Amino acid sequence: MGETGRMQYVLTVQCPDRIGIVHAVSGALLDVGANIVENAQFEDVDSGTFCQRTVFEADPGVTEAARGRLDQRLVGFDAQIVLRLAESRPRVMILVSKFDHCLVDLLYRWRTGDLPIDIPVIVSNHTDCEPVAKAHNIEFVHLPVSMENKAEQEASLLALMETYDVSLVVLARYMQILSNDLCERLRGRAINIHHSFLPGFKGARPYHQAYARGVKLVGATAHFVTGDLDEGPIIEQEVVRVTHAQSAESLTRLGQDVERVVLARAVKLWAENRIFAVGNKTVVFP
Amino acid sequence: MGETGRMQYVLTVQCPDRIGIVHAVSGALLDVGANIVENAQFEDVDSGTFCQRTVFEADPGVTEAARGRLDQRLVGFDAQIVLRLAESRPRVMILVSKFDHCLVDLLYRWRTGDLPIDIPVIVSNHTDCEPVAKAHNIEFVHLPVSMENKAEQEASLLALMETYDVSLVVLARYMQILSNDLCERLRGRAINIHHSFLPGFKGARPYHQAYARGVKLVGATAHFVTGDLDEGPIIEQEVVRVTHAQSAESLTRLGQDVERVVLARAVKLWAENRIFAVGNKTVVFP
Amino acid sequence: MGETGRMQYVLTVQCPDRIGIVHAVSGALLDVGANIVENAQFEDVDSGTFCQRTVFEADPGVTEAARGRLDQRLVGFDAQIVLRLAESRPRVMILVSKFDHCLVDLLYRWRTGDLPIDIPVIVSNHTDCEPVAKAHNIEFVHLPVSMENKAEQEASLLALMETYDVSLVVLARYMQILSNDLCERLRGRAINIHHSFLPGFKGARPYHQAYARGVKLVGATAHFVTGDLDEGPIIEQEVVRVTHAQSAESLTRLGQDVERVVLARAVKLWAENRIFAVGNKTVVFP
Amino acid sequence: MGETGRMQYVLTVQCPDRIGIVHAVSGALLDVGANIVENAQFEDVDSGTFCQRTVFEADPGVTEAARGRLDQRLVGFDAQIVLRLAESRPRVMILVSKFDHCLVDLLYRWRTGDLPIDIPVIVSNHTDCEPVAKAHNIEFVHLPVSMENKAEQEASLLALMETYDVSLVVLARYMQILSNDLCERLRGRAINIHHSFLPGFKGARPYHQAYARGVKLVGATAHFVTGDLDEGPIIEQEVVRVTHAQSAESLTRLGQDVERVVLARAVKLWAENRIFAVGNKTVVFP
Repeated sequence: MGETGRMQYVLTVQCPDRIGIVHAVSGALLDVGANIVENAQFEDVDSGTFCQRTVFEADPGVTEAARGRLDQRLVGFDAQIVLRLAESRPRVMILVSKFDHCLVDLLYRWRTGDLPIDIPVIVSNHTDCEPVAKAHNIEFVHLPVSMENKAEQEASLLALMETYDVSLVVLARYMQILSNDLCERLRGRAINIHHSFLPGFKGARPYHQAYARGVKLVGATAHFVTGDLDEGPIIEQEVVRVTHAQSAESLTRLGQDVERVVLARAVKLWAENRIFAVGNKTVVFP
Repeated sequence: MGETGRMQYVLTVQCPDRIGIVHAVSGALLDVGANIVENAQFEDVDSGTFCQRTVFEADPGVTEAARGRLDQRLVGFDAQIVLRLAESRPRVMILVSKFDHCLVDLLYRWRTGDLPIDIPVIVSNHTDCEPVAKAHNIEFVHLPVSMENKAEQEASLLALMETYDVSLVVLARYMQILSNDLCERLRGRAINIHHSFLPGFKGARPYHQAYARGVKLVGATAHFVTGDLDEGPIIEQEVVRVTHAQSAESLTRLGQDVERVVLARAVKLWAENRIFAVGNKTVVFP
Repeated sequence: MGETGRMQYVLTVQCPDRIGIVHAVSGALLDVGANIVENAQFEDVDSGTFCQRTVFEADPGVTEAARGRLDQRLVGFDAQIVLRLAESRPRVMILVSKFDHCLVDLLYRWRTGDLPIDIPVIVSNHTDCEPVAKAHNIEFVHLPVSMENKAEQEASLLALMETYDVSLVVLARYMQILSNDLCERLRGRAINIHHSFLPGFKGARPYHQAYARGVKLVGATAHFVTGDLDEGPIIEQEVVRVTHAQSAESLTRLGQDVERVVLARAVKLWAENRIFAVGNKTVVFP
Repeated sequence: MGETGRMQYVLTVQCPDRIGIVHAVSGALLDVGANIVENAQFEDVDSGTFCQRTVFEADPGVTEAARGRLDQRLVGFDAQIVLRLAESRPRVMILVSKFDHCLVDLLYRWRTGDLPIDIPVIVSNHTDCEPVAKAHNIEFVHLPVSMENKAEQEASLLALMETYDVSLVVLARYMQILSNDLCERLRGRAINIHHSFLPGFKGARPYHQAYARGVKLVGATAHFVTGDLDEGPIIEQEVVRVTHAQSAESLTRLGQDVERVVLARAVKLWAENRIFAVGNKTVVFP
């Protein structure tokens, strides 16, 4: 809450670029007595898409009024509008297999308040991470997956999302490939961490590929999940320097440090409405 | 020039933060048929200062009209407004002593069009860099400086700035300390490169200080010049990893690579109106 | 264990530089049938100190024989020699106050085998971290400290080191200043993480200092503890980029990620005998 | 030259790993009264290859004696030995097309003494870089290349190498693909800079590929030239952070800064005998 009982709100607008959009949005906010605290805008010239993220202070309870004014002033702009209280927190479901370094890191950041999310449920095709979930008093659901039950398992995932009212799915080293259909349903709402600096070393065992190729840096990539494996819009990437003296196992350990940080950054950016998917790329307001 | 004969303009606004400022600015731009291409805003909460940088497209020749509309709509906001054609280029005077690595790098970036500036004159207290200036067909002025003639020499510097209609002074390893008076006159218009990661290793021979201290990273800092030596608002910093095996001379060479890049970035940011001095800090829109 | 039942050993030698040292050491190793796997040597020219770290493979049980051969061949070199089985693990005592991010990270790396150490005991002047210690089945000792009991508390620390047979003390954000006497006793055996890029922002609240100064990078420094506060030999440093938009609190969070990684690297380097203290600097073989 | 008239020498040894190699080498050096200043060794476990780089001080004129002792002590080790005075400088031929940023940077570092090489000749398939060569008083040879004359042109390249007694060829953005035959002849003696972070974005227009893919970092790779395009042993890599706001042209400019530094580092490493090609990878002693 800001000064004198005012609240902070987060607004995002995405629409085809047209003259007057900035003025229309700021007018709607002025109509409800809002003071703009942070504002970022970008026009993607390739697609002609306008993206805006605004944090403003206003009296408590103006959400509906602000939405009404935005709808009215933005008639004809064909805009997708998101408006919420800054203090509200998205509910996130984490998928994990056996490696727990990303999971443990997300939970630590969640526990210390660094990640502004709620985590009602953790799902895994293995039981290795159950103790970690339990230690944090988070529901753990074991959903084994096989060639035969994949469709059912994915149906269960979707049902869990509904049950737990989840708006984001994080694949924290979940070593399963989602079906095209599930990817499509989760478009823009599922973030994966890939353990390479994409587009290098797609597919399996990227650190072993990196070792064999003798690269001098290894990295990790957080991206939106799409049906095209390892090809979704990239959200964040980072690398770390390695040398000839490191084995594939050393690269794996060093890379895990990068994976953790990259995934945590991506989840935080999403939770703060800083990511816009535009075509197969992202606009990220830091 | 943008589509169908439109021009790009750059606008910056800096003022005490108040409700309605964003709407007022966007209204003035809409009044002249401008389409906003890039827009960044920030409110510095410590000082209550609002900063905005906007790139917009509009018909040729709207500068005066836009200024008029801005003046009118921003009455009472106490705003500092800068408005110019994006294709116009600030005129820059470079000061240098004997080391030429930063100078050579700036000239290369200027020659290849990377740095959107004009460089009418290079000034030095030595003659070492005269051949470099001549090779680029840039006026070179030798202004020796001593304890006795310092005041006169600085007066000559100011006179040269006027003669050459210069709006920015770049100290590209100019190993002289400017007087308080000159610093004050050049406030916000003089950028220095310091060869350390400030605030570490202020003063003389920072690489030798760094070597003696055994640091594992050395760096460089571009900052606005103020009367407080090495204490001006920081614009940009970068570091590079070093080891025990590097001598002070090696640190110097490695650091020069960093100095070059950091100074060039700072000059480019300034030339594109991306830097706002707010108190003793900078707001930089990348 | 290497091929055909051979074991790996780690050897370090530090002595005044003299012709023949390399040959003498390699001769001693050849005497016991050792095969050198890794070898790094460095001569610090300022102090004339020679440092060598060697990993070799030899038959099990040659430690005593190798020591004997080294003593004999290195007569007159005034060498400090450390020789141990590579698979042996140093015993480490962790000191912590209230912040647990470094502690949690060290424990995670210990649990997953990344850090080749044993952690028999965690000591704190507060009880906040007791649950974390308990969750890892590690002894937790609460040693409150005040102006009055400081000498006794430090005596207890030393007694605990003896009880638990500890060779390294890690100050994982232990917000107490050790006495000169204790620093002296722990010379080369106590590693601290400082939450700034030293020598910038010594002393208290470095992230708030960094915020006030408006730096564009913040960092962390792992160093050996000495009586000179924040002046001990630097082992490792790292930085992360920040902007004007980050508050002092954000810098703190971002910096914690750096602290974790820097401290973990330093502890691992120490545990693998890769660090040599030479004067007030370190030689680190990566 | 070191203390009391002694000279510095650089020695490299590469051979199948066998017990006793380190002792044999150090024995040979001791035989000629050498004092080892720097020493690095590595065993590549995949190939069983031993690599050693040693800098030692000895009396002037011991080269032949040292070679003799090494040959004698290393009988049966099947070692490739390189031994030279540290102050001798390899002669380098630079190939370039139209982009001159790498060429200008190499020449600057050569002129200031940072790069310990001689550059007797610059060759290009265009004439754009002739003025730069002339300004540095370096021979410029224009060798246009087409589908028809490629074999002759490459023969001319080889002839020039002989004429100018060149031991290293640097492709400083030379936009031509060398024939398999030429690659084979230049194995280990030709370094190329590729303007992407390999193995990502092989082939043409990598910055445009990177822009289209929306990556958050772009990079450059220096590698030995082999018949397999963009697949030679990697020597050095670096990246720089980019955002959605950068155009393909901006990526190109930012990337050029990285290319320059990466290529210069690789050439310097080669000139100091720090690079060993082992299979399709490199061992690099920093």
